[in-house]
Amino acid sequence: MGQVHARAWSRLRQHYPDAPFRPELVAVADPSAQARDLALATYADVATYEDWRELLARDDLDVVSMAGPNALHHEVGVAVAESGRHLWIEKPAGRRLAETQAIADAVETAGVQSAAGFNYRNAPAVEWARELVRGGRLGQVQTVEVRFLADYAAHPDGGLSWRFIDEHAGSGVLGDLVSHAADLACHLAGEVAELVADEGRFITERPLVAGAGSHFARGGDGERGRVENEDYVGALLRFASGARGTLAASRTAVGEQCTYGFSVHGSAGALEWDFRRMGELRVCLDQDPQDAAYRTVYVDRNHGETAAFQPAGGIALGYDDLKVIEAHRLARSIAADQPEGATIHDAVRAARLAQAMATSVSTRGWTPC
Amino acid sequence: MGQVHARAWSRLRQHYPDAPFRPELVAVADPSAQARDLALATYADVATYEDWRELLARDDLDVVSMAGPNALHHEVGVAVAESGRHLWIEKPAGRRLAETQAIADAVETAGVQSAAGFNYRNAPAVEWARELVRGGRLGQVQTVEVRFLADYAAHPDGGLSWRFIDEHAGSGVLGDLVSHAADLACHLAGEVAELVADEGRFITERPLVAGAGSHFARGGDGERGRVENEDYVGALLRFASGARGTLAASRTAVGEQCTYGFSVHGSAGALEWDFRRMGELRVCLDQDPQDAAYRTVYVDRNHGETAAFQPAGGIALGYDDLKVIEAHRLARSIAADQPEGATIHDAVRAARLAQAMATSVSTRGWTPC
Amino acid sequence: MGQVHARAWSRLRQHYPDAPFRPELVAVADPSAQARDLALATYADVATYEDWRELLARDDLDVVSMAGPNALHHEVGVAVAESGRHLWIEKPAGRRLAETQAIADAVETAGVQSAAGFNYRNAPAVEWARELVRGGRLGQVQTVEVRFLADYAAHPDGGLSWRFIDEHAGSGVLGDLVSHAADLACHLAGEVAELVADEGRFITERPLVAGAGSHFARGGDGERGRVENEDYVGALLRFASGARGTLAASRTAVGEQCTYGFSVHGSAGALEWDFRRMGELRVCLDQDPQDAAYRTVYVDRNHGETAAFQPAGGIALGYDDLKVIEAHRLARSIAADQPEGATIHDAVRAARLAQAMATSVSTRGWTPC
Amino acid sequence: MGQVHARAWSRLRQHYPDAPFRPELVAVADPSAQARDLALATYADVATYEDWRELLARDDLDVVSMAGPNALHHEVGVAVAESGRHLWIEKPAGRRLAETQAIADAVETAGVQSAAGFNYRNAPAVEWARELVRGGRLGQVQTVEVRFLADYAAHPDGGLSWRFIDEHAGSGVLGDLVSHAADLACHLAGEVAELVADEGRFITERPLVAGAGSHFARGGDGERGRVENEDYVGALLRFASGARGTLAASRTAVGEQCTYGFSVHGSAGALEWDFRRMGELRVCLDQDPQDAAYRTVYVDRNHGETAAFQPAGGIALGYDDLKVIEAHRLARSIAADQPEGATIHDAVRAARLAQAMATSVSTRGWTPC
Repeated sequence: MGQVHARAWSRLRQHYPDAPFRPELVAVADPSAQARDLALATYADVATYEDWRELLARDDLDVVSMAGPNALHHEVGVAVAESGRHLWIEKPAGRRLAETQAIADAVETAGVQSAAGFNYRNAPAVEWARELVRGGRLGQVQTVEVRFLADYAAHPDGGLSWRFIDEHAGSGVLGDLVSHAADLACHLAGEVAELVADEGRFITERPLVAGAGSHFARGGDGERGRVENEDYVGALLRFASGARGTLAASRTAVGEQCTYGFSVHGSAGALEWDFRRMGELRVCLDQDPQDAAYRTVYVDRNHGETAAFQPAGGIALGYDDLKVIEAHRLARSIAADQPEGATIHDAVRAARLAQAMATSVSTRGWTPC
Repeated sequence: MGQVHARAWSRLRQHYPDAPFRPELVAVADPSAQARDLALATYADVATYEDWRELLARDDLDVVSMAGPNALHHEVGVAVAESGRHLWIEKPAGRRLAETQAIADAVETAGVQSAAGFNYRNAPAVEWARELVRGGRLGQVQTVEVRFLADYAAHPDGGLSWRFIDEHAGSGVLGDLVSHAADLACHLAGEVAELVADEGRFITERPLVAGAGSHFARGGDGERGRVENEDYVGALLRFASGARGTLAASRTAVGEQCTYGFSVHGSAGALEWDFRRMGELRVCLDQDPQDAAYRTVYVDRNHGETAAFQPAGGIALGYDDLKVIEAHRLARSIAADQPEGATIHDAVRAARLAQAMATSVSTRGWTPC
Repeated sequence: MGQVHARAWSRLRQHYPDAPFRPELVAVADPSAQARDLALATYADVATYEDWRELLARDDLDVVSMAGPNALHHEVGVAVAESGRHLWIEKPAGRRLAETQAIADAVETAGVQSAAGFNYRNAPAVEWARELVRGGRLGQVQTVEVRFLADYAAHPDGGLSWRFIDEHAGSGVLGDLVSHAADLACHLAGEVAELVADEGRFITERPLVAGAGSHFARGGDGERGRVENEDYVGALLRFASGARGTLAASRTAVGEQCTYGFSVHGSAGALEWDFRRMGELRVCLDQDPQDAAYRTVYVDRNHGETAAFQPAGGIALGYDDLKVIEAHRLARSIAADQPEGATIHDAVRAARLAQAMATSVSTRGWTPC
Repeated sequence: MGQVHARAWSRLRQHYPDAPFRPELVAVADPSAQARDLALATYADVATYEDWRELLARDDLDVVSMAGPNALHHEVGVAVAESGRHLWIEKPAGRRLAETQAIADAVETAGVQSAAGFNYRNAPAVEWARELVRGGRLGQVQTVEVRFLADYAAHPDGGLSWRFIDEHAGSGVLGDLVSHAADLACHLAGEVAELVADEGRFITERPLVAGAGSHFARGGDGERGRVENEDYVGALLRFASGARGTLAASRTAVGEQCTYGFSVHGSAGALEWDFRRMGELRVCLDQDPQDAAYRTVYVDRNHGETAAFQPAGGIALGYDDLKVIEAHRLARSIAADQPEGATIHDAVRAARLAQAMATSVSTRGWTPC
């Protein structure tokens, strides 16, 4: 993700010529020599560091991105804020609520701006969806369904990477996909008042693979270690508004590559989105409540940030474009000294929901958020 | 639904020339004169009765269909069985578990055969889905999602019909759509061990419409009465097998006409079905568990009962065809004196799940089924 | 198809209680003993004949269905009409235009009513499509695309049935799928003024299979015979209205089971239909001409004949239901002594287009229709 | 499109760290002061020129992009090549075949490398489609359908921009969408031997809009001018391989935003692609030729250039990414002094097909390509 942030910054002015500054990538820290070499090959005039502390010691940094594994979020995130730099941090921003909260506190204390990597919000179709919901076009919201299904851990021989170890990851699908799902649920339909959750652990052992930094590495017949966290979470939600919701997230869902989506039903309309077809929003609007039909709308320059990227409907934005939007919002936050887009405080909210789910699983009951 | 049953019987031999008997419609009972006139116009040589007791008094009946409103299921169902006739009964077969159980007991005691109207099971794609799940083609089942969304009560001016009054309906969406959803969940993935549920009541008053027998009648500005039961149910399921599940059903879902479907994910594959495209099954099989893709299969003569209806794939069966299959299974049950297809006992199981959901809503906790 | 006609008649009053008569199946003629036995098993009180002439000699027939292979259409069709019986005939109604015309002439001379098996017209979504086009809801029609792709002859070992022999079939895909496609094109958008066509012959030899009555029988390594007609036809159409069109039909299209559909684009809207999802119409209406979106509408009781079959949207009609509608229209034609629905004259028009295509293929030029 | 080229170059090393050089944008020529200001705002250290000749006079240029209107392609393209710079040119690369050919000749003579903007080829799904077709996975190709439908000129009040004037555009949809469509057809299935075509002119007058540089500008009630070229082209294709094809392109197709796609059917399989869902390929492979089903595959790192952009399947590439791939191929062409990807010679081939279509329209007959 560090590369994705760097790419996003370099494209900022290309898509937003009025952006308040033209960012320059000056330094990269990564314990991996290979990653540092890659940075050198890609960018002219970039300094590289093995230790992120050395990078922070530079005196020419305005913004720092934190995109490493969960276990480092807390320490680095706090240090960045305390050093007075604006912080762009990937979710979940800590292994558990306390860590996320600590980062948020540091940001608050330091008076810096923050961005949290809830990139799905930035898809023009999602932005439009939120406008429709918040603007009352669906009437009173009745139900919200959020599904985040992935297959990245679907292979039983997928190596026992840091994601499966609590010390490194904090949790399983909760800190990963549920983090995004919870953020979207609230982003669309407001605060969740309480929830009840269940979890599933389907693949309980995985091969010990040397250097299994990635969940894509595969082991064979050798030794296996215990998976320490959950593959699946399901939850029933009650929103503060009275709306009901379901949330399901799985990392072992065969057949699903980034099946990340939601549907919202209200008294006057409905809508549906899926990340795999991220430029489309299915909307059911402005009809009699019975026998109403969905339109499949390809976003165009009237929807979200599309106009900064493509001239007309039907021309796809890509994932990386969402990150340019994220960078732009952080740039504007910095210039205006006022948050815009998802911040560390949204990460706190998502972490609070994830923790409520974990609590609900152990207490087997409804849990306030 | 009484008409649908009659039509199904009349088509039995057309699709199943080897069916054990050629049924004849001899009598119809309906309190509505209009309905009786319709029967006379449609069928030659049919007797009609205002009172179902008179019909039961005939001595030439072998099978009786019960397709009236929920409040009559119990009395008529028990009477049919006690009179020694085989019983074809629509779901939910009683307003609550005790009524359904009483009908099942009467069927058992009388030694007659029964069929319950869980027609979605009969769709060839669903039958194939079950074969795939039960035959292990998906590996170990991890998750089951069942969604039954309808808009028949989405209009706030839809009249206060019997469906909204507990005395007549027993419950709201629980006894209606959830009944089907619960049956499908178990039919596919086996017994549900426990569940936790939530409900939603979104439209709390409806117009008093004279003779609002149907939920399609609409009222205007006049007096309104209280809706006594739930519009929406959401639930988390734990199957006996260890699989997890979600179930959602709504009768006020704008944009959804019969969005009745399920998806099942297992360690080795996945599948997905939607009633609106009932001849299609999306299957993900026989691939590496990561980056596996779904095929959209149009059922052909190798799937379920398709061959009795159409010569080749891609030619649609209709809803009525599902009822012919139901009739055929009951005919075979009768001939073999051995149940085939969905019976009153399946209705009991579905009622048990619905009751567990109702209990869970009031106790706010996990409830065994 | 004979069975399908019989089934349709028997269901007439079930769906149309006001139908002008309650039909009775009195006699069936089929050279196959097996087919005759099937009729006896299915229907009480039916007479069977090996020779259709004996059937025609009965004095109690009002309507006769002709659903045999193409080579018999002409002789039987003419004989039925000349005997004064109303005629229900399957397409293409003759092996070539002259035969179809002769049947039409006989019908005209005899003053009987006729129905031709252009069943796709009867799908409620198609009927609605026509209303939209003819009622001007799409504005001026610009383009019409019709695709009829099937895989029934896609297997190179599919036996050399009558369909592949000109003496029996008259032509290949022209007399079969193109017949339907041409009818739909005109039904939607009016007369075709001229066209240019191409054909393809992809599988040029097929196994000689004993008794290969059906194209589903498969041969092995034995002797092969020559396929005498075309597998594929493509055409450009110019409608009398000035609209342009494309038509493509293939019987060897791997992956396509009944991919029969069309799209129509006009200055103010567009629509799209596919038989495999025959209850859905994608419509683009009532929007600015740029960035307009399609709605996917599940037909409901307001569309075509849906209300005679199902109470609400999203509940599938099946193929057989289309034939009940066809029977109903013939019944009304007979009662009113006035044609309703597709008649032998529509079959003449479709044959005229098919012949123009054949001419265009051999002359390699635009051909008037 | 000039901006798109610039953006693509700046991202080259980000996605291809091994790219043979790290490009630098040194100069931009545009007659519009606004466009030049935009370049200055976006890129540090860029020179701008009103006249492209001044830009060409610089001595530090290695590659020049030509992305202006069609009428300038010829003069600028030839000048760039003659000046010894490598040329990246947008399609159609000239208003008619002779112009395109002249550019190709200049490139050839100068010994420079070229890239033509047939960007759809670069979509990983399209690249995979070509591999499947060319590698024989579909068996013998039987039919190819290409559809390029757009609505950019669907509004009757869209201003009379240069696209509608032959002197500026050379032709209508032929030089625009057909150019892409023809390239894809050949890219997938090889040379087209002959074709027959038809055209349609649906909106024959458009408002004279001051400064209607773009077809998105809209006029009102004022004066109108004549549209000089075609809105629609349809064609039947005969490939050298014996395969048949249809091609349809429209710029006035209501409901279609970039509905650019193709389907290919072969004796052993089939596939289907649509630009709006450019990361998906529907493939029908490795099955019995009858009742075969399509899989919907979301491209992953095994398909085309996906791995240079995203780590896994289901994460969308965007349109701009296609241009980075195009830039990368040109960079490699330059380094290896050997063409890679689409070149000016492919533009010649597409122009030859477009000219054959124009000829066929006027001669009303089959025309060799």
